[in-house]
Amino acid sequence: MIEKLKHKIDLKTKPIGSLGKLEDVALKIGSIQNTLSPEIKKPTMLIFAADHGLADEGVSPFPKEVTHQMVLNFLNGGAAISIFCKQNGLNLKVVDAGVDYDFPEETNIIHAKIDCGTKNILKSPAMSEALCLECMTKGKEIVSEEFTNGCNTIGFGEMGIGNTSSAALIMNKITGYSIEECTGPGTGHNNEGLRKKIEILKKASELYNPKNAHEILATYGGFEIAMMVGAMLQAKEHGMLLMVDGFISTSAFLVAHAINPSILDNAIFCHVSQERGHKLMHKYLNVEALVSLNMRLGEGSGAAVAFPIIKSGVTFLNEMASFEDAGVSNKS
Amino acid sequence: MIEKLKHKIDLKTKPIGSLGKLEDVALKIGSIQNTLSPEIKKPTMLIFAADHGLADEGVSPFPKEVTHQMVLNFLNGGAAISIFCKQNGLNLKVVDAGVDYDFPEETNIIHAKIDCGTKNILKSPAMSEALCLECMTKGKEIVSEEFTNGCNTIGFGEMGIGNTSSAALIMNKITGYSIEECTGPGTGHNNEGLRKKIEILKKASELYNPKNAHEILATYGGFEIAMMVGAMLQAKEHGMLLMVDGFISTSAFLVAHAINPSILDNAIFCHVSQERGHKLMHKYLNVEALVSLNMRLGEGSGAAVAFPIIKSGVTFLNEMASFEDAGVSNKS
Repeated sequence: MIEKLKHKIDLKTKPIGSLGKLEDVALKIGSIQNTLSPEIKKPTMLIFAADHGLADEGVSPFPKEVTHQMVLNFLNGGAAISIFCKQNGLNLKVVDAGVDYDFPEETNIIHAKIDCGTKNILKSPAMSEALCLECMTKGKEIVSEEFTNGCNTIGFGEMGIGNTSSAALIMNKITGYSIEECTGPGTGHNNEGLRKKIEILKKASELYNPKNAHEILATYGGFEIAMMVGAMLQAKEHGMLLMVDGFISTSAFLVAHAINPSILDNAIFCHVSQERGHKLMHKYLNVEALVSLNMRLGEGSGAAVAFPIIKSGVTFLNEMASFEDAGVSNKS
Repeated sequence: MIEKLKHKIDLKTKPIGSLGKLEDVALKIGSIQNTLSPEIKKPTMLIFAADHGLADEGVSPFPKEVTHQMVLNFLNGGAAISIFCKQNGLNLKVVDAGVDYDFPEETNIIHAKIDCGTKNILKSPAMSEALCLECMTKGKEIVSEEFTNGCNTIGFGEMGIGNTSSAALIMNKITGYSIEECTGPGTGHNNEGLRKKIEILKKASELYNPKNAHEILATYGGFEIAMMVGAMLQAKEHGMLLMVDGFISTSAFLVAHAINPSILDNAIFCHVSQERGHKLMHKYLNVEALVSLNMRLGEGSGAAVAFPIIKSGVTFLNEMASFEDAGVSNKS
């Protein structure tokens, strides 16, 4: 199929290779869907939200209550991700994976609360392995439901005050990069805040010696991260396109990739953020992001902003004329 | 207004600066329109097409007739730029600035033919200064008409077999970069083709000593490039947003910038192409492109693909909630 797709792309009225990354996108999506005429169906952005015990140590300059406040902002349409999903035709669904707040039952949210936040990892692992498996199972169910509803393209966003710390620790344990390399200012530390964050994360890194990806995930947690890992693995199972974006979502991808390396075939890395470790994650995975807009907001915002470029890759493959169709002379 | 815009942006529910280049876009468009609530109205992509006498020397691997064939492809909706404009809600208008082909009067094109292609610059300047002025005046009129029709955002694309040669020569004379630095493979030369192209352009560069931007433009020409220069200058006069993209369009921008440096205030550089000199043009202008997708197709395709990102800049400024609106706690 790759060869057939390449041939179709090369007959389009343009110099060979001149659509650059859009051609890579077309090739990837055509290959995933095993067709010369791929389609993006019901594209959906799933936002997983949860709280983190480590936030009590001051790893973020924002207070913990911002997690639930931002979830409400997502639902009310006022957050960056809400705006960008609306602009670009993505369904937005928010999952309560473990926010420290009681959302009323009628809230337009996917209720999947595991607990009201993880444990403080300076005191104990973030969650038990049983809870971690529960998270992953829940994530799989959520994606399967989207798939059953006709969705074949899925983005992964997150919200959780303190979750760049979880992501940095997961990255540290999976890739072997040092805590300094994995740790950035997150939502906006100054130098002193960053220094303190690194100190805390070094302590947390030295506390435990998880043996494999599952143990790393349970130890350093994030209910939202663990649920995303399950969701990503299931999206791969269903042959969906995964739009991966941001430091935290990519940390989940690192775990999913450790469990099933072929997940790379289904992923497009939409945006590389300014968060220090994100570029190194891409280097570790040997991938290149579609765009780099100096964003560092999370929420899946980079994927939502880059989504029209993914659509352009599919659209030119389906709609552009060939030299023959258009009666255009080819290169001599 | 800049300070007021910055303040509005900083109150949005996101860490300060975390929308990166989207914040720059919002600031730029708000400043141009002198408002806290800018709008993109009737966004339009103008494609200027013309033929080049120098094409007879074999500077392009494609035959000259491809210029008019591609113009018809634009109009029939089969070209990359047609597809991307349609996808992203841009009006597409094609200008015959000097194509070596008789388009019937009923063709849905802006008829502005100056002549059937420029002169071969190895034998004489591409056009007289009088014709060059005529091009610029025509370009101004075309943009004024769009402005009168309510358009405030305009992209500049081009088509013309041989026009990367014109662009390289203009760049060479304006910026002082060497012909080797300014010359790339265009639509797809091999090494031997590129070597020959550089040899021809060196000869052409040594033949003339134009004294100023107007003379450079007339000497090395491109009716489409000269018309674009007029169009860009007029767009600046009307306070419109200019979406600049591609090696050839940026060569026109270099001339416009030499005539009126403040045009930079109104320009967003949408895409930096793989064409060798394009990065150096951006360096000369001290600007950074929004995205880099390894495209090298021309037509304004990079601007059309990047356009939704520009819209995202405006949309978040207008629609995102502030911390106060959303009841979200700010950084401690």
